[in-house]
Amino acid sequence: MDTPIRIGIVGYGNLGRGVERSVGLNPDMQLVGVFTRRDPASVTTVSSDVSVRAVDDLEAMRADIDVLVLCGGSKSDLPEQSPAMASAFTIVDSFDTHARIPEHFAAVDAAARAAGTTAIISTGWDPGLFSLQRLYGEAILPQGETYTFWGRGLSQGHSDAVRRVPGVAAGVQYTIPSENAIAQVRAGDLPELSTREKHTRECFVVLDEGADADAVREAIVTMPDYFEPYDTTVQFISAEELARDHAGVPHGGFVIRSGTTSANTEQTVEFRLALESNPEFTASVLVAYARAAARLAASGDHGAKTPFDVAPGLLSPKSPAQLRADLL
Amino acid sequence: MDTPIRIGIVGYGNLGRGVERSVGLNPDMQLVGVFTRRDPASVTTVSSDVSVRAVDDLEAMRADIDVLVLCGGSKSDLPEQSPAMASAFTIVDSFDTHARIPEHFAAVDAAARAAGTTAIISTGWDPGLFSLQRLYGEAILPQGETYTFWGRGLSQGHSDAVRRVPGVAAGVQYTIPSENAIAQVRAGDLPELSTREKHTRECFVVLDEGADADAVREAIVTMPDYFEPYDTTVQFISAEELARDHAGVPHGGFVIRSGTTSANTEQTVEFRLALESNPEFTASVLVAYARAAARLAASGDHGAKTPFDVAPGLLSPKSPAQLRADLL
Repeated sequence: MDTPIRIGIVGYGNLGRGVERSVGLNPDMQLVGVFTRRDPASVTTVSSDVSVRAVDDLEAMRADIDVLVLCGGSKSDLPEQSPAMASAFTIVDSFDTHARIPEHFAAVDAAARAAGTTAIISTGWDPGLFSLQRLYGEAILPQGETYTFWGRGLSQGHSDAVRRVPGVAAGVQYTIPSENAIAQVRAGDLPELSTREKHTRECFVVLDEGADADAVREAIVTMPDYFEPYDTTVQFISAEELARDHAGVPHGGFVIRSGTTSANTEQTVEFRLALESNPEFTASVLVAYARAAARLAASGDHGAKTPFDVAPGLLSPKSPAQLRADLL
Repeated sequence: MDTPIRIGIVGYGNLGRGVERSVGLNPDMQLVGVFTRRDPASVTTVSSDVSVRAVDDLEAMRADIDVLVLCGGSKSDLPEQSPAMASAFTIVDSFDTHARIPEHFAAVDAAARAAGTTAIISTGWDPGLFSLQRLYGEAILPQGETYTFWGRGLSQGHSDAVRRVPGVAAGVQYTIPSENAIAQVRAGDLPELSTREKHTRECFVVLDEGADADAVREAIVTMPDYFEPYDTTVQFISAEELARDHAGVPHGGFVIRSGTTSANTEQTVEFRLALESNPEFTASVLVAYARAAARLAASGDHGAKTPFDVAPGLLSPKSPAQLRADLL
């Protein structure tokens, strides 16, 4: 493409910052601006020359933006924003509430079809790249099992749960995949793994002054749904240690498909992510799908899509002929 | 789909046998028959109820077959067969001579467009699944390096080269990826790796009676292109040991994309295959792409395609709505 793809960012937290960085790494893209519900003057972008505007300014900018990258949360932002924005813009989002994907898809699809826009939803890594691996694995090895392991990584939801416990001043939680379970899966044993056998949880907690450590630990490890089904360890650290050792947002995990193609012939397909920054990586996936969304929209392929519907070549800045020569 | 996808197999070696098995694992498919250039009476299929016919019978069977899976070799079979068959049938192949893919694509594309058929080429695992990983990795992490390692696996071409050495009665060659090189890549070191640093080669050789072991070893390890650029070991074994320990056709490897999304923030995407049967796995990939080819042909999307052009969802027997609910 000779004309750059013009990108707008809606929402500017860690994910939005990651999208700003990622657009800067893609020479075929141009950042039109960041759009925020906060006071634009209060937002400091990574790069000083980025225009920050109010979300309400978007309406007048339909002709200036090819794709909006939505960087809000899945709980309350995206269920509203994705359909609303898709009724005027081609969009991508990283909606990640697995159980609600069908209804989110339906709402976005209706808006995008009515408006003649394209909307690619759930484009992060899970859902997203992990979903693609689950699909390829199952389609190629129909006789087998798929295993998804998460971590080692910081879980936002579980960290929030830890911080809500009385006596906790601050804290983080890491999800750790079981090496033993992964080894069984890789060996082709097709194990049936309980929740407790697949992952452990590791908490680092700063106590409120005078709080009872044992009571806090007990409240965490017995918390239903969040920690009770897992082997959970709690370590108490100082606020300084928390700031020094736990400021990053690492994550990742494994998708393993283990199957057989004839008696006793085992085949294993494994995909692994090791991410030093979860939001920056998720942002990079969003930006690659923004390129695909721009192309689908330009070719008149409208409505809601997921990564399952997007031909891989559309993610790359290279032409189909270049891709065949360089990467096939 | 309610009507099964009707599959024909052209060529019946290890790969064709793998396709026969794989079709049997996919309830939405039906095997019409095996088509061979040999005397059909001389071909024994895995399952006794498979019809075996002459390739020449194909011409009269256009209405009975949805997709032909071409199982010939890339050196001399597919360059002729793929364009010829695409001029009458929707086809998939696993053409794997990387350097010749552009010309193969052009020849198949011309035939398929003229005939109104669909042809997906180069659908094994390298090219194929590994190519997809190279593409996703590069598109998502534009700032980084991609590394492909092969093995541990039996290399047909290198085994043939060993067997051509005077004094060699029989033998096999395994390609072994360097654990040390993989560790450097995983650590995000972005190493520049020489050919010798990435892989080693391991040969198991049965000598002709009276052959000079040292001369054979020297002839192998100094063979230009095939072995000279690598650290190669040669072990001499008996014909019994060869038959007992080296009858399988294992293969696999790694594609690793290592990149950064901001200063010092490393992100690693790794894809690994561990295959106990290379031909059976390649066959399974061909069959999944045969499903996609049938759908593309039915929707009027004709011409040559590669895995880069095929939306992942087309490989699965599940509907788009099912895929979103189950796998996203």
